[in-house]
Amino acid sequence: MSFTVLQKDTTTRARNGLLVTAHGTIPTPIFMPVGTAGTVKAVHQRELKDDVRAHIILGNTYHLYLRPGVEVIRQAGGLHRFMNWEGPILTDSGGYQVFSLSEMRKLTPEGALFSSHIDGSRHMFTPENIVDIQRAIGADIMMALDECTPYPSDYAYARKSIDLTHQWLARGMKHFAATEPLYGYDQMYFPIVQGSVYKDLRQASAREISSHPAAGYAIGGLSVGEPEGVMYEMVEAVTEILPADRPRYLMGVGTPVNLLEAIARGIDMFDCVMPTRNGRNGMLFTRRGMINMRNLKWKDDFSAVDPEGTCFVDTTYSKAYLRHLIMSKEILGAQIATLHNLSFYLWLMEEARNQIALGNFGTWKDEMIRQISRKL
Amino acid sequence: MSFTVLQKDTTTRARNGLLVTAHGTIPTPIFMPVGTAGTVKAVHQRELKDDVRAHIILGNTYHLYLRPGVEVIRQAGGLHRFMNWEGPILTDSGGYQVFSLSEMRKLTPEGALFSSHIDGSRHMFTPENIVDIQRAIGADIMMALDECTPYPSDYAYARKSIDLTHQWLARGMKHFAATEPLYGYDQMYFPIVQGSVYKDLRQASAREISSHPAAGYAIGGLSVGEPEGVMYEMVEAVTEILPADRPRYLMGVGTPVNLLEAIARGIDMFDCVMPTRNGRNGMLFTRRGMINMRNLKWKDDFSAVDPEGTCFVDTTYSKAYLRHLIMSKEILGAQIATLHNLSFYLWLMEEARNQIALGNFGTWKDEMIRQISRKL
Repeated sequence: MSFTVLQKDTTTRARNGLLVTAHGTIPTPIFMPVGTAGTVKAVHQRELKDDVRAHIILGNTYHLYLRPGVEVIRQAGGLHRFMNWEGPILTDSGGYQVFSLSEMRKLTPEGALFSSHIDGSRHMFTPENIVDIQRAIGADIMMALDECTPYPSDYAYARKSIDLTHQWLARGMKHFAATEPLYGYDQMYFPIVQGSVYKDLRQASAREISSHPAAGYAIGGLSVGEPEGVMYEMVEAVTEILPADRPRYLMGVGTPVNLLEAIARGIDMFDCVMPTRNGRNGMLFTRRGMINMRNLKWKDDFSAVDPEGTCFVDTTYSKAYLRHLIMSKEILGAQIATLHNLSFYLWLMEEARNQIALGNFGTWKDEMIRQISRKL
Repeated sequence: MSFTVLQKDTTTRARNGLLVTAHGTIPTPIFMPVGTAGTVKAVHQRELKDDVRAHIILGNTYHLYLRPGVEVIRQAGGLHRFMNWEGPILTDSGGYQVFSLSEMRKLTPEGALFSSHIDGSRHMFTPENIVDIQRAIGADIMMALDECTPYPSDYAYARKSIDLTHQWLARGMKHFAATEPLYGYDQMYFPIVQGSVYKDLRQASAREISSHPAAGYAIGGLSVGEPEGVMYEMVEAVTEILPADRPRYLMGVGTPVNLLEAIARGIDMFDCVMPTRNGRNGMLFTRRGMINMRNLKWKDDFSAVDPEGTCFVDTTYSKAYLRHLIMSKEILGAQIATLHNLSFYLWLMEEARNQIALGNFGTWKDEMIRQISRKL
């Protein structure tokens, strides 16, 4: 387990790095496709590896805990073996889903009480059992349990909230140190910065979590409704404080533009459901701009889905065909759009790394943002 | 365009053949995966070719006519190019869907009037325009417009119905002869036997349609609710009459057992939604029996989906994982089950051909039926 900064950009805070995990070395900046319930929706594992060329994927502890359940995953020998994915996996702590999905939830100093969105059954996540669950899942990178502060939150609430998150972190770190991996390989444990949209709280939180030695550090509670400018401001304030020799992970973000802006501010890792979820709804990201596949203009456009795309779907299928599939709610439409979007996100990260290596990231980023922001 | 009978089984009416089409030569007996709306649901075209190893697929004229519409397919240069499938395609005539899907339908001597199940718009299929539509789709094998007699139908209705089907056939044959392919390759046109469950009507219909020279002949209106024994009886009565030097296609059939029993009675071609639709619902066919993936017993069974399967999914994923995906309604579950079932159907046809070549089909069939009928 180690992180090495390979290169720094000349005009921005962007940097290239290598994050070594038990299941492979990840070049950063990197985007992690979201595999909510042990599957990146509509994508075979071999496609993830060979076509999307994902270096690491994300699993959701909340979903996996409820279904198939920790016991099944433990019996399988961990999530890698359960889903037959040999690359690195990061799992979130479930905190975000408890707040966004469960029908009932109640925070106590002890942990987060919630009822399942599937069957209403009651459960509790604590800083300690969230470590145990992620030990059983066997994630290469585990996340600390935090409160994902809703937006908007008033200052007093946000301040109280980071206190809880920090107390939970201390307990989680302790339990992490006191427990062993189950499957013979090392696991990392990342603390999470919170603090809503208040710069001083974000900075205080960043200082607090940085006081715990960890393999990497995350920023949570952003891209939850606040203006983009505010998000960038918070990221900037936090990345200045987080240890420079550790990877920085901006959770749940975002659009391709968000990724480039955050890389310029020193972020190394991302995850987001946008390429997969928006893909299933017919929204494609390309290096020439965004495509709403439902638009009537594609009905008889027989050009390739993305002539410059890196995935086989980009040149195998036409826009008119993909539009037909999306309009007809055909599963293959979701498959094609998802593969395209994920491949684009991974390509964008690879290109960002190339430009950082050239010391040209700032200039390239501004031009790329102009291109990808267009609507085709 | 030609059909050659290569071998005949010794104790059954099974035979091996080769059907030459403009997009490739098809070994028979063969199963055709159903690609309703220009896509075999949940399967990429490269998977159809390389993993399922499909020799020919089926498209539904009714669905394609309504969406994306004939004009889009014509502009694409035909369905092969629209969906990027280079192998042979057969399209049905839409008659079956008019009766099973459309909200309103009315038969007249002129044709079948119906309203779309998508938007309620009114349309008419005639023996002539069904030829034109399939010319525009560019199917290698086109089907005549028929009335798919509902089950049960009384004798008088069934007799009147075959008269209509035969009149439509005469008009369709005439229009087929008077029109040209649109894309520079030849198309075939298959008449369809009807006659419900009445042996004499089936025989009369078989004689009537055999009076038209055609590249192949189909049997429709079976597997619509009648007992299996009755279906086999009808198939037997008809295959004795249909020209022995032409392929015989049993439409919409069926289970793996149905296929083997029909092959033994001289059938060469099949299509059915069962492997795809049942797969999406978690029902798997294997050479050791049927698997209901929703059964709790698979929850922690980490053995391969099908250790003897021919498709990559069979050994890539475990039963416990597939069950989790199916129970969680994950798209990948539909993808895996569909690929498995189609690969099994295609394997079963290949093995049937091998056994026919050995003159051992009858014995093998009885043993195989015992195996595949079990519930695992």
